[in-house]
Amino acid sequence: MNTRLPLIPLLEPIRPDMEQVECLLHETLTTVEEPLRSALLPALGGGKRLRAALVVLVGRLFEVSTAPFYSLAAAVEVLHAATLIHDDVLDEASLRRGRGTLHTLWPVGATVLAGDYLLARSVSLVAELDDPRIVRILAQTLDTMCAGEIRQMLFTKGNHNRREDYYHSIEAKTASLFAAALHMAGILAGAGELQIDALIQFGRELGTAFQIVDDVLDLVADETVLGKPVGSDLRQGLITLPVLLFMEQEPDHPLLQRALEPTPPQEIVQQAVQLVAGSPAIPHALEIAQGYVSEAQAALDAVPPSPYRTALLDLAEFVVRRQF
Amino acid sequence: MNTRLPLIPLLEPIRPDMEQVECLLHETLTTVEEPLRSALLPALGGGKRLRAALVVLVGRLFEVSTAPFYSLAAAVEVLHAATLIHDDVLDEASLRRGRGTLHTLWPVGATVLAGDYLLARSVSLVAELDDPRIVRILAQTLDTMCAGEIRQMLFTKGNHNRREDYYHSIEAKTASLFAAALHMAGILAGAGELQIDALIQFGRELGTAFQIVDDVLDLVADETVLGKPVGSDLRQGLITLPVLLFMEQEPDHPLLQRALEPTPPQEIVQQAVQLVAGSPAIPHALEIAQGYVSEAQAALDAVPPSPYRTALLDLAEFVVRRQF
Repeated sequence: MNTRLPLIPLLEPIRPDMEQVECLLHETLTTVEEPLRSALLPALGGGKRLRAALVVLVGRLFEVSTAPFYSLAAAVEVLHAATLIHDDVLDEASLRRGRGTLHTLWPVGATVLAGDYLLARSVSLVAELDDPRIVRILAQTLDTMCAGEIRQMLFTKGNHNRREDYYHSIEAKTASLFAAALHMAGILAGAGELQIDALIQFGRELGTAFQIVDDVLDLVADETVLGKPVGSDLRQGLITLPVLLFMEQEPDHPLLQRALEPTPPQEIVQQAVQLVAGSPAIPHALEIAQGYVSEAQAALDAVPPSPYRTALLDLAEFVVRRQF
Repeated sequence: MNTRLPLIPLLEPIRPDMEQVECLLHETLTTVEEPLRSALLPALGGGKRLRAALVVLVGRLFEVSTAPFYSLAAAVEVLHAATLIHDDVLDEASLRRGRGTLHTLWPVGATVLAGDYLLARSVSLVAELDDPRIVRILAQTLDTMCAGEIRQMLFTKGNHNRREDYYHSIEAKTASLFAAALHMAGILAGAGELQIDALIQFGRELGTAFQIVDDVLDLVADETVLGKPVGSDLRQGLITLPVLLFMEQEPDHPLLQRALEPTPPQEIVQQAVQLVAGSPAIPHALEIAQGYVSEAQAALDAVPPSPYRTALLDLAEFVVRRQF
């Protein structure tokens, strides 16, 4: 690598590990022919690497040989990248991490295949760990994520606008992969059953908080920091927690109702985004996210104290404080 | 199941096995919510089940417990269905097995997710076999298939119109899955190294013959039997073996050259299809396919003689004689 890997500051202590993971991510693409290889690099090259960091930190926490954790961390990031590529087709998103999404540059078919290729690479990386339990968890998680995305798509603009549906949906599409990353890492680390349960719970609560904050940022973030336009969710008719909370307070607000009609004018959506972004629904959603983070942190009482446990606790805190 | 499973006659001796596989295929969809479940049924419900039959026959050949072979056979068929769904997005195909393809009925995003879901189910089925070698083969095969499809897409209408490129392409997109099905079945059967090599070779040669015949049928078949329009390949600018053989004999035929220009008129493509379909390129291609079948059959000398070996040999013969 020619450039220094960008990392959020609290991951600096595991920089050497994260650079190993980065090498594996780059290796994933070595067999891909140009010009697809260059097109895939941004899909794999950006991101905060939170999921990879969680895996690496569990390896460090249990003081076991770190090499297999690099493969697992890479597998989780590659799976994540694959699902992002396919999600962007689904959402017809045009920007991701400040760049044009793959399907705006390539035919949709090529984009689908590129995602499939990364899915396959992810399974390959995990298969090399030689533990069928870990493969089963990965496959099950992909199952859950697809089923969740399908459900979200079917319910978009539908009448399933309750918090319960929202939590069900983000559990499947986001929290499941966080939970799986920690579950697989726990197995690889040879952690005990109670500790593995704690890691899974940490992952699930953290993933839920992460998605809530993502949904808040989609409404309030600085577009240049976020790397994609704000209000994308509402524009797709996707009702996220902040919007739900707003609707609970003002069920009949005419602007929001118009924004949720089929194909509303762009300026109506923009005004509705500003309406929710300036309302108490935002601090309320962040407070709920903070609650999940606290639950996540409490779960880690079950694992041995160490600087790496502290890093996991700090990472959880970062998830609610982040601006991108 | 309410209706009797349709099978090609030579698979009748393994009907009870094939019905078990069919049950597993239906079970795959039990967790999918409506209306997607009904939409996916045709994608999984049709087909000749050749790949599944190959796996079952290897199980019978080595006289080992058959239950795991049902899972493997189902996994291979599910993977095949997943790749067909994504390929139809790629090819913008509108008919498959006599029905509208999924992406003509559903948004492209839903189709992509449906394919992903089946990919995940396929990995899950294989993961349950508890043998990391088998998972690795499946993942590697998916890798190869995606890379092959990507290469084919990049080279379509390009200057890579040599037999070598064609064989390279069908090896990746079709023969690799046939070879993998037999490889995985061989491992599951506890076959020896030489026998496994023979099974892999049988699969690879058979898969190559299968794809050549597919490409011939795309030009000459009865549409009502084929279940999709003839000439689809040429319409997509895909140069298959019969067209290559025709071009070797008549490199400057003006009709074919016009058909291979970007966005040719439909009637030109239709005429070019009829031109190649009525030429000696068709029997020549079938002769080449027969050569691969003979190679496949010869490879099976390495496995013990039995009615199931005979069925495998007959299945290979069927592949060149089939009309659909």
